[in-house]
Amino acid sequence: MVNSISPENISGFVVGEGCFYVEFGKDGKYKSKIRVRPTFVIEVAQDDEAVLLSIKQILGCGTVYHLDFGRYQTYKDKNWKKHVRYKVSNISDIATKVVPFFEKHPLFGKKLKAFEFFKAVVQKVLDKKHLNTQGLKEISDIVDQLRIVNKRGV
Amino acid sequence: MVNSISPENISGFVVGEGCFYVEFGKDGKYKSKIRVRPTFVIEVAQDDEAVLLSIKQILGCGTVYHLDFGRYQTYKDKNWKKHVRYKVSNISDIATKVVPFFEKHPLFGKKLKAFEFFKAVVQKVLDKKHLNTQGLKEISDIVDQLRIVNKRGV
Repeated sequence: MVNSISPENISGFVVGEGCFYVEFGKDGKYKSKIRVRPTFVIEVAQDDEAVLLSIKQILGCGTVYHLDFGRYQTYKDKNWKKHVRYKVSNISDIATKVVPFFEKHPLFGKKLKAFEFFKAVVQKVLDKKHLNTQGLKEISDIVDQLRIVNKRGV
Repeated sequence: MVNSISPENISGFVVGEGCFYVEFGKDGKYKSKIRVRPTFVIEVAQDDEAVLLSIKQILGCGTVYHLDFGRYQTYKDKNWKKHVRYKVSNISDIATKVVPFFEKHPLFGKKLKAFEFFKAVVQKVLDKKHLNTQGLKEISDIVDQLRIVNKRGV
């Protein structure tokens, strides 16, 4: 664990390192055949795993896992450091823990814009809008805007 | 300008996006023929320039400039977004503004380690250790350790 990370430290850190996105698209595993999963992640090099564990403890949800499997194995030749990822995708945790946290301890810059679109999708999912065609269209439009804000160049 | 970035937001943001390093090596432009310049930078995509301007205002030093010249021109084909950089390298600003700020509003994780090495170099420069061979050797050893902490994989 890392001592003394404050909530405002976390919001500042997340402006740099966090990502709010929505897994959105066809998926046969779901009854509706469509997956709409608002997700919050932070990914860092493995030597800062303690930072993610502290954030997990403070937010009271999510999981921290190592990205040293599968396709990441092939990165070894490229001087790639092992990474760890903190991830929250449970809609209840997103709605009752993640969103209220960043409302209380605001983000800033472009990340604040991303968070506003993300929140709008979360609300639509809570309202069960993703279970009908019109609602899905509305969500899709917001997700498009979120993707533009999240997009980054090389 | 961005509203309401707090000092602890800044330390959290800098853990993700900031870099403490030392320009160190032979340079004919200096009387001693050696440049030892502790430097603090934050680099972001241009659409977050307002964040850097706010940080500049809060820290009360440094400059913000655009990286859309010279070698960066060749990045255009690679879907590279224009970047902006906040930079402080004036030793007086580093010693009286940057270092005290991050002592008061602590960093965490690996970046805290980097800051401790950085501070040690700053102190040696203030003590004029960089003007003799033994002092330069001591600084060089710390800079080596700082580089290891700062190193990141792909």
